Amino acid sequence: MDGVQAANSGHPGMPMGMADAATILFTEYLKFDPQDPDWHDRDRFVLSAGHGSMLLYSLLHLTGYERPTIDDIRNFRQLASPCAGHPENFLLPGVEATTGPLGQGFAMSVGMAIAERHLNALFGDDLVDHRTWVIAGDGDLMEGINHEAMGLAGHLALGRLNVLWDNNKITIDGATDLSTSEDIPARYRASGWHVVGCDGHDFDGIRAALDEAVADPRPSLIDCRTIIGWGAPNKMGTAATHGAALGPEEVAAARQHLVWDSEPFDLPEEISAAWREHGRRGIGAHEAWRARLAASHHRDEFVRRMDGRLPADIGIADHLQSLIANLQKVATRKASELALEAINAALPDTIGGSADLTGSNNTRTKAQKPLTRDHYSGRYIYYGIREFGMAAAMNGMALHGGVIPYGGTFLIFSDYCRPAIRLSALQQVRVLYVMTHDSIGLGEDGPTHQPVEHLTSLRMIPNLTVFRPADAVETAECWALSLERQDGPSLLALSRQNLPQLRTGRTDNLCARGAYRLRAAQVARQVVLIATGSEVELAMNVADALEGQGIGADVVSMPCWSLFDAQEPNYRADILPQDTLKVSIEAGVTLGWERYVGPRGLAIGLDRFGASAPAEHLFKRFGFTAEAIVPRILAALSSQGDQ
Amino acid sequence: MDGVQAANSGHPGMPMGMADAATILFTEYLKFDPQDPDWHDRDRFVLSAGHGSMLLYSLLHLTGYERPTIDDIRNFRQLASPCAGHPENFLLPGVEATTGPLGQGFAMSVGMAIAERHLNALFGDDLVDHRTWVIAGDGDLMEGINHEAMGLAGHLALGRLNVLWDNNKITIDGATDLSTSEDIPARYRASGWHVVGCDGHDFDGIRAALDEAVADPRPSLIDCRTIIGWGAPNKMGTAATHGAALGPEEVAAARQHLVWDSEPFDLPEEISAAWREHGRRGIGAHEAWRARLAASHHRDEFVRRMDGRLPADIGIADHLQSLIANLQKVATRKASELALEAINAALPDTIGGSADLTGSNNTRTKAQKPLTRDHYSGRYIYYGIREFGMAAAMNGMALHGGVIPYGGTFLIFSDYCRPAIRLSALQQVRVLYVMTHDSIGLGEDGPTHQPVEHLTSLRMIPNLTVFRPADAVETAECWALSLERQDGPSLLALSRQNLPQLRTGRTDNLCARGAYRLRAAQVARQVVLIATGSEVELAMNVADALEGQGIGADVVSMPCWSLFDAQEPNYRADILPQDTLKVSIEAGVTLGWERYVGPRGLAIGLDRFGASAPAEHLFKRFGFTAEAIVPRILAALSSQGDQ
Repeated sequence: MDGVQAANSGHPGMPMGMADAATILFTEYLKFDPQDPDWHDRDRFVLSAGHGSMLLYSLLHLTGYERPTIDDIRNFRQLASPCAGHPENFLLPGVEATTGPLGQGFAMSVGMAIAERHLNALFGDDLVDHRTWVIAGDGDLMEGINHEAMGLAGHLALGRLNVLWDNNKITIDGATDLSTSEDIPARYRASGWHVVGCDGHDFDGIRAALDEAVADPRPSLIDCRTIIGWGAPNKMGTAATHGAALGPEEVAAARQHLVWDSEPFDLPEEISAAWREHGRRGIGAHEAWRARLAASHHRDEFVRRMDGRLPADIGIADHLQSLIANLQKVATRKASELALEAINAALPDTIGGSADLTGSNNTRTKAQKPLTRDHYSGRYIYYGIREFGMAAAMNGMALHGGVIPYGGTFLIFSDYCRPAIRLSALQQVRVLYVMTHDSIGLGEDGPTHQPVEHLTSLRMIPNLTVFRPADAVETAECWALSLERQDGPSLLALSRQNLPQLRTGRTDNLCARGAYRLRAAQVARQVVLIATGSEVELAMNVADALEGQGIGADVVSMPCWSLFDAQEPNYRADILPQDTLKVSIEAGVTLGWERYVGPRGLAIGLDRFGASAPAEHLFKRFGFTAEAIVPRILAALSSQGDQ
Repeated sequence: MDGVQAANSGHPGMPMGMADAATILFTEYLKFDPQDPDWHDRDRFVLSAGHGSMLLYSLLHLTGYERPTIDDIRNFRQLASPCAGHPENFLLPGVEATTGPLGQGFAMSVGMAIAERHLNALFGDDLVDHRTWVIAGDGDLMEGINHEAMGLAGHLALGRLNVLWDNNKITIDGATDLSTSEDIPARYRASGWHVVGCDGHDFDGIRAALDEAVADPRPSLIDCRTIIGWGAPNKMGTAATHGAALGPEEVAAARQHLVWDSEPFDLPEEISAAWREHGRRGIGAHEAWRARLAASHHRDEFVRRMDGRLPADIGIADHLQSLIANLQKVATRKASELALEAINAALPDTIGGSADLTGSNNTRTKAQKPLTRDHYSGRYIYYGIREFGMAAAMNGMALHGGVIPYGGTFLIFSDYCRPAIRLSALQQVRVLYVMTHDSIGLGEDGPTHQPVEHLTSLRMIPNLTVFRPADAVETAECWALSLERQDGPSLLALSRQNLPQLRTGRTDNLCARGAYRLRAAQVARQVVLIATGSEVELAMNVADALEGQGIGADVVSMPCWSLFDAQEPNYRADILPQDTLKVSIEAGVTLGWERYVGPRGLAIGLDRFGASAPAEHLFKRFGFTAEAIVPRILAALSSQGDQ
């Protein structure tokens, strides 16, 4: 209340309404050690209703985490403080996930609970034996992603997932009955959840409900009937407490109502001491766990995985060698499967999956067994038709650590996962998106299934590395780069259609530079063709045709814009020299390509929706043929000559 | 089966599995007239499981629509045919909605059912009295958006919405129990739906279920237990029939199994005649309706609205006049509310709403009453925390016709609605997105709530008009352009923070050209500053500072890229002349701005996630001040001089 008032911005209602339940959870149930926020076997706690961040900051401070300090809390929502408006996992240890975009905290917790059971199946109770706790609000439960996340959790029988629902019947617009008439417990029961209710302001009732949740083998929804803004005598129970400071008068009235006479940010020592004592509750368990780890034959491997380090060999080198030995003309989605066969054999950390497009995304390798409620050791998840839920679950898995999740869908459905892709990037987690059918090359399914704007709109998300490899070698290189990257997500855009292998000799990982000269002009260079993915083959054909007319043309393959942008200027100038006509070829929107082709260059793309027809008809219809492109280049060369 | 086989691409399983239920629906229940596919009081039918498009094409052909012809069907999934891989509303009358992206057809049908009840409340049973029918598959029901859509439908008690669920227990990856354990009927009942089941291959059972659904006052889910690929003796009941042609052998076997000896695309005349007779079933009702319409005092207004024509005055002209008379320094979200007060009073067609951010999006005007289950005549919908569901429902409303939906959320959550925004654009419907809190200017809520990449990634969606107005006048102009646009959606990106009114004199609608010179250089022009939204004020300050140093600078306000790109070259060259340093200022990613500033220009933006702090601190921190920008411009001018 005081922190929000000091900032004059924030959400006091939820922290005050859930303070009682959260107090019981943190002081009696949650397994954690404030001295080591990253203890691998701690319980995970996710504040899905992230706008109530002040509740979490208070709990971390009270239980003895090094940060936030009381000054951090006093500076809530200011640049210098790690106490951001919404909890940010990269600012404050103890914040397990960045939350705020509603529904996603809950959905990430499902991924955490999956990772826990999977690692438990591999490493046993001695090393991995913890719970995932969530506080979720009505908004979390109303968002569509909740349906996907709870369905997945119920299907996988994630009994160690316990969600405290802050059932205060208030949303921003007013009472929940303005917009919903749902019987939420009935919905949860229909998906295999256990539901238990309690008065969220009655300590014994909360304990009884948490005990029941812990004991039940199903995931549990704990229906905490609460009053938003509890303790603010004139505003509690109303939407007025949700998203604005209470105001000095109501803060004063709440002090009186709660019989709290300390000044803001001033904690009586006996209360502080009692909280810190609760914060030490986990030390013994932590010590015992450390001893078990030290004695475990799994120790090195477990620590390697939890630290996110790759083994020395992830299978790519041999795989690349085999590609050079036996050229592959395959779709890059198939090339991805070939790479994955090698990776999954060498790297036990991966957990693959697809949102019901396994055979199309080529995401399941031969030895992968399904991860099911009966076999958590499996390494492949049938996510169902739940793209967003899959992406958020992968975020949770990566945040948990010990696993590297990858998941597939069609590139067009990156839109369905986009809010979670953004959170992968913001949270700096290693999640790999396998997005196939990456252009009009998918053909007959038509414009609803043909990504046009997606590639470049994904390239715009900060800290997301977007790859569009051109052949089997580039695909393997991009997989290696994605896996080696520890501080953010990667997305591979892959073709449906077969592509020739253009890289036929052994080299370093050329994709690491984002773009490189695949073929140098044979005669005096006038043109640089820049292409990605399936259009690199076309660029090679265009170059042949140009050179047949005595016009020298480089072909630059540019699988990754952001890596290229990060190269030093000399390299970039060498690849895209000033004194040439630069021509980009990509079967997507042209906006953005001006960065590389300049104002006098030529951006060949598709600035409209596609159509339904066989792929080769579409490429022809939309001008992606050497016959259509060469005259455009000749015209551009000739008009440049005029200037 | 034959159409898919001829294309050697498509989905035979669903059409064959649901053929029985669809036959009963089309021949005995659905109200329609193939001679007038746009009859305003027809029942709407949405094939949410759009991959089963061949079912719909067959039904339209059989019941006597002019198209598709048998040749159209023979050319399924070819460029020349309107029988696209997925049904496209813009290719074929009788296709009420473009479907394929799973879950959205269902969600659009909710919007259609809302529009029907709303118009019924206004115009009475005589003119508006129809049902909305849907065929949905397991995928439609597993997607998150289904939770939002069915929750909204249950809450609004849309009893005239009836959904036939193709319950075949098969998805692409295999049996549904690979990925879900949900009791779907229980979930629907928990949201106020009526559920009835039937054997989807038993005509009497289907009839009994449809009768019960029609009679029940709640929205109905009709659980049709079907066998996918029904009739293909060796493949039916398996995922093999879902997404690939059956193959010539199985097609032959199915012919034998079904005792069907006609050649492909050859229909026995007696069967054709019987179907066409069924297609004439609605003619009488249509005639009677026409007579009622002719006699109705509502006739002109009803027809105007259903035709999508605006009244002569939509309130904007007077509103603009009042803005010039009384300058407004308000946030553009507030400016939008001011515009809406005028619009909603003059234009009865609008139905507003927000995804639980009414007070923040400023979407509800004073006279708007809520649209509820008890008062369908209301013009404001509390959509709840259902951004995607809201957007899809708005698509459905616009497709139905007679209403112009607008809805609000934060711009950041455009990601949650993005798949539906794309379908607004593809379907060419007039849906208006009111997206507020459009930059780091939202301040303390931090990076999860600060759009950075969103503006330009939305600009990439073909046929979506994205506006970012700079003041109250531009906001009103952009509202006018959005409403006047009949062939696609518009999105307004609006500020949280107050902005001065920069347009103080009466002019034509300058936003119509996408960009215009707001202020001309006072001294010799060296620089053109291009800005949008809240950064136009900053650009004015930068221009002042530059001119103080003797450097002439134009300020161009560019509220809409796509409208500017559509201007003739002379206009564009006049606004962005070659011989100047062009500088863009926008608090978002710079990618894309190269189109306007060129390779030697300066794109001032934010190529990273934001942070949590008061807005003014963030603008300063990230260099959005005249003090930070002027030196960058001076440096750029000086380095240009070096070249």
